[in-house]
Amino acid sequence: MNDFLPGLEGVAATKSAISFIDGEKGLLSYRGYPLETLAEHSSFEETTLLLLQGELPTAHELADFTEQLRSNYRIKYHIREMMRHFPATGHPMDMLQTAVSSLGMFYLGNECLTGSDACKDIHYVRNMTVNIIAQMAPLVAMWEHMRQGYDPIEPREDLSVAENLLYMFTGKEPDPLMAKIMDVCLILHAEHTLNASTFSALVAGSTLATPFSVISGAIGTLSGPLHGGANQKVVSMLKKIGSPDNVEQWVDDKLANKKVIWGMGHREYKVKDPRATILHKLVAELVKERGGSLDAMFETAMRLEAVCADRLGHKGVYPNVDFYSGILYSEMGIPEDQFTALFAVARSAGWLAHWREQISNNRIYRPTQIYIGSDVREYKPLAERS
Amino acid sequence: MNDFLPGLEGVAATKSAISFIDGEKGLLSYRGYPLETLAEHSSFEETTLLLLQGELPTAHELADFTEQLRSNYRIKYHIREMMRHFPATGHPMDMLQTAVSSLGMFYLGNECLTGSDACKDIHYVRNMTVNIIAQMAPLVAMWEHMRQGYDPIEPREDLSVAENLLYMFTGKEPDPLMAKIMDVCLILHAEHTLNASTFSALVAGSTLATPFSVISGAIGTLSGPLHGGANQKVVSMLKKIGSPDNVEQWVDDKLANKKVIWGMGHREYKVKDPRATILHKLVAELVKERGGSLDAMFETAMRLEAVCADRLGHKGVYPNVDFYSGILYSEMGIPEDQFTALFAVARSAGWLAHWREQISNNRIYRPTQIYIGSDVREYKPLAERS
Repeated sequence: MNDFLPGLEGVAATKSAISFIDGEKGLLSYRGYPLETLAEHSSFEETTLLLLQGELPTAHELADFTEQLRSNYRIKYHIREMMRHFPATGHPMDMLQTAVSSLGMFYLGNECLTGSDACKDIHYVRNMTVNIIAQMAPLVAMWEHMRQGYDPIEPREDLSVAENLLYMFTGKEPDPLMAKIMDVCLILHAEHTLNASTFSALVAGSTLATPFSVISGAIGTLSGPLHGGANQKVVSMLKKIGSPDNVEQWVDDKLANKKVIWGMGHREYKVKDPRATILHKLVAELVKERGGSLDAMFETAMRLEAVCADRLGHKGVYPNVDFYSGILYSEMGIPEDQFTALFAVARSAGWLAHWREQISNNRIYRPTQIYIGSDVREYKPLAERS
Repeated sequence: MNDFLPGLEGVAATKSAISFIDGEKGLLSYRGYPLETLAEHSSFEETTLLLLQGELPTAHELADFTEQLRSNYRIKYHIREMMRHFPATGHPMDMLQTAVSSLGMFYLGNECLTGSDACKDIHYVRNMTVNIIAQMAPLVAMWEHMRQGYDPIEPREDLSVAENLLYMFTGKEPDPLMAKIMDVCLILHAEHTLNASTFSALVAGSTLATPFSVISGAIGTLSGPLHGGANQKVVSMLKKIGSPDNVEQWVDDKLANKKVIWGMGHREYKVKDPRATILHKLVAELVKERGGSLDAMFETAMRLEAVCADRLGHKGVYPNVDFYSGILYSEMGIPEDQFTALFAVARSAGWLAHWREQISNNRIYRPTQIYIGSDVREYKPLAERS
């Protein structure tokens, strides 16, 4: 097979039973369940177990998993002390990649390179998975306070992942509608087939590296502006546009100059991203309850969606998941540079599901290269070079 | 293209001009220069520049690069303080993945997600590359002291990367033969086409993540026992065998039980790994100068090589790079669990060369999956599940 496909586009790199996209129909399903159903009926905890196990959990399994997660929200004080030495200007994604990598030292120590056998141990796999998923959100929320010079807020074991995340960010009892919206956002971002970060998790996992190494690496891959960074740009863009009246002129300028309109279009979807449809409804619900400044941004966003549908709809360019999530996070008081970190919190579920699938039937990734370099040549001593 | 090749074996994932392997002839070249030549005439610094730039540097370029590296050996005290909170049992590879990830916060801060433009800035690319290569070895050596509860030894700007590494490990003026051997070991491990860790660096780099995120992730991929962990196992194995007299029986037992003989065989080579040949000579040189306990381990290793050639040579199973490097590192007083970290120090040159090649003609990696999961199915409320 000597064809070279840049970015491995169209090349099957794995067999997977975790999620499925039909880009023509705008369908995304996790383990066979359409995302709309999960967003309406499920919770992040249940969806995570579904992704990891393949089936919806029983009431007992769900209670057990929830209990395990909650009892692992706490972050060891050595990790907190370590984080005190991170510079306040450190990006949340760099913080998260670093902190998750450090968990390997705290939870495994020198076992690192014995992963080969450890990976076959279901208790190990399960415990490490719970540890990572439980600690991602607390780490992100802690950093928000610590980078401002404040002590972090301690997690609360009586709260769900979404509730506790909001609580640790704001220090206030989470508003039920906000908590529901955060929970749905986590469900929507939990998994999306074989994107770059998930693929990097498979490659790292295939050497039987520990899950901490694997997830830390996937966070690094997600941090790239071509992958996870778009939702924070949507909010800046909407602020810049300012009001619904400016949308039409703004879009036409962008199109004339062939510039990107953030949050529009997705490689996988020819219709509106099903996640955007779900988020759109949530924003509308929130606007109804709150109004105010949110209203203006939402009106601008809806106008932008309409104008883009008119100008770009025939090309299959519609809002993607990033288009509305930023508006929601902003309304929750979460700073823009934390949006991608929230994405990572949710996606840890999908990454770990893929990691477990990979090691259950492992083969190390080692594709070939097409060599386009120099033939063998003679070494010239330093003095003879010019 | 619907063929599925596990591990993407035989699938071309990139075009590259960096290194080339001819496994039949036992040839490995960097930018067209056979490894034997570089091991004999070059230095790690020169080889690194060759890998990064594509051509052997002029005297001026080499002096400039060497000066840049040396002035970046120093580690910021906040990083050292952060490392004080790592548990003493933390594996050196987890330490290194964590510390390199943290560098992104210290050297870039919130620029993280602006990598898109930053990647096009040659000064940024060059400075970040120098930073990473300069700091890998000091971080590894620092940790050796810190995990034992001692303050680390400060780097010395008058020493080469190899000399400074030995100096920071031992606190003693580096022995010239040992420093030469360390330098050759770094050259030999600097690059090896598209292995799993290098491939993971391409995938992460393709999202335009920062080089700190990219290299941290590659360290994680390398840490897996199927990839970077073999050299530490060779030394344990040789100690277990104990003496040359036990080799024949030991090999036959292993083969009868279909067990792995560490350091033997390599997917890419049908003959003796050229790196093993170079290292073999260095061990012999060292034995001549030192003798003693090294002698016994070397005799055992040579006997093992001979017995394996007899039993497995027809299958193309010969010593690989890991077979002799562990013996050398042991003799330098470096603990076995640090061997893979030394591998990472050297390989940072190759990873960064590939990263630069990737972003110079980038396309995000997003292969497809073959979906083998459930069809769309109906959600069952929790109470109805059993």
